[in-house]
Amino acid sequence: MADIKVIAFDTDDTLWVNEPIYNKAEEQCKKLVQDYINPSTLSDQLYQTETKNLKLFGYGIKGFVLSLIETVVELSEKQVTGSEIQKIIDIGKDMITHPVELLPGVEETITALKEKYILMILTKGDLFDQESKIARSGLDTYFDYFEIVSDKTKGTYRNVLSRYEVSPSNFLMVGNSLRSDVLPVKNIGSNAIHIPYHSTWEHEKVELSDSTQNGYYELENISQVPEFLQGNQFQNQ
Amino acid sequence: MADIKVIAFDTDDTLWVNEPIYNKAEEQCKKLVQDYINPSTLSDQLYQTETKNLKLFGYGIKGFVLSLIETVVELSEKQVTGSEIQKIIDIGKDMITHPVELLPGVEETITALKEKYILMILTKGDLFDQESKIARSGLDTYFDYFEIVSDKTKGTYRNVLSRYEVSPSNFLMVGNSLRSDVLPVKNIGSNAIHIPYHSTWEHEKVELSDSTQNGYYELENISQVPEFLQGNQFQNQ
Repeated sequence: MADIKVIAFDTDDTLWVNEPIYNKAEEQCKKLVQDYINPSTLSDQLYQTETKNLKLFGYGIKGFVLSLIETVVELSEKQVTGSEIQKIIDIGKDMITHPVELLPGVEETITALKEKYILMILTKGDLFDQESKIARSGLDTYFDYFEIVSDKTKGTYRNVLSRYEVSPSNFLMVGNSLRSDVLPVKNIGSNAIHIPYHSTWEHEKVELSDSTQNGYYELENISQVPEFLQGNQFQNQ
Repeated sequence: MADIKVIAFDTDDTLWVNEPIYNKAEEQCKKLVQDYINPSTLSDQLYQTETKNLKLFGYGIKGFVLSLIETVVELSEKQVTGSEIQKIIDIGKDMITHPVELLPGVEETITALKEKYILMILTKGDLFDQESKIARSGLDTYFDYFEIVSDKTKGTYRNVLSRYEVSPSNFLMVGNSLRSDVLPVKNIGSNAIHIPYHSTWEHEKVELSDSTQNGYYELENISQVPEFLQGNQFQNQ
């Protein structure tokens, strides 16, 4: 790994637990309105509503809660009560204040990598929420740079590399989402490691053709990153 | 103005109309539920709820809409209906897609200043929403740097100045909020111009003592900035 100088990490479901918090909130909401909304109908409709609202709300808990309320109102045929709406908002508040739970091996890995590399947090989502989680994670002192972006496209990565004057060959992105952390990075000729998480939001899933599958590395967990970097030379396939 | 090299502008109610959009939404909501919620009670309670929720939601439309729903639910004594809740969400969506209306003189002023200074947008609020407004404003090509932050404190300004390697004496902040754009900037020994806007959110208002009033300049509108910069030497009082 002679050429890598800057390693950027995604946060949600790469450094700490995220998707299960959304899943739990969805389950709580289903239970709340189960007397008049079929749980699986709610799930399907919620995904439709979230997708439709994404261009207005962006990523993050507040937009999710608004989509959840909209879905329940739409499916409830006027049966939803004010107190149930308030309970949904409270479910959202619990998500926001949920303790930040680091994934196994994260702290040791970041500590080890900090010795040799410039470390960056590069995550998308709600600015306020991500800053709060970074602060509460206790990991902020390990990182040199923080970039919270509204989306992760080729253009986003080009801007970040240009801003820090890092060439694509010296940059490595580590994350759990093929759509956000891997494919756009490969597409600008840079390096990526995919670490799948057991639970991934439908929106972040992509179908891969054989040709794209060869363009990045996949590891089972973050603890394997330092050893992998010692043993491998990235090639921009 | 020999020493100023970088001029940073606040956006909401400095470059374009913002607070009136929130006021209009509040009025629409009051009208929607006027049969069972007293309008002035709604205003008072909304401000309480927003202030209480600020540490969870941060600034921006999505948090405002969630606080609006929470306020209506709390005051409605169970009379609010699902369809009214949906109308409040739709009011929020209208806010998000509201056309960006530049304040008088903004484009000419920015065009003139761009010749001599490095220009930055430095605004707080929702990342996704601010990026969308910057893009839709048509002003993005005039600015060299964009910083969207979750709050504007002394620490925020110190970080931004350090990030761009700008000394406090070479930096000027222009904005409509004493709390966010002026006082923290003066407190780190840098320069600020206050351009009051006719409508300011209660939260951004501060009581000034005589001693702080002397530490910055106040102009009536943004068109006066270029001439002011030619005629005056900033002193860090």
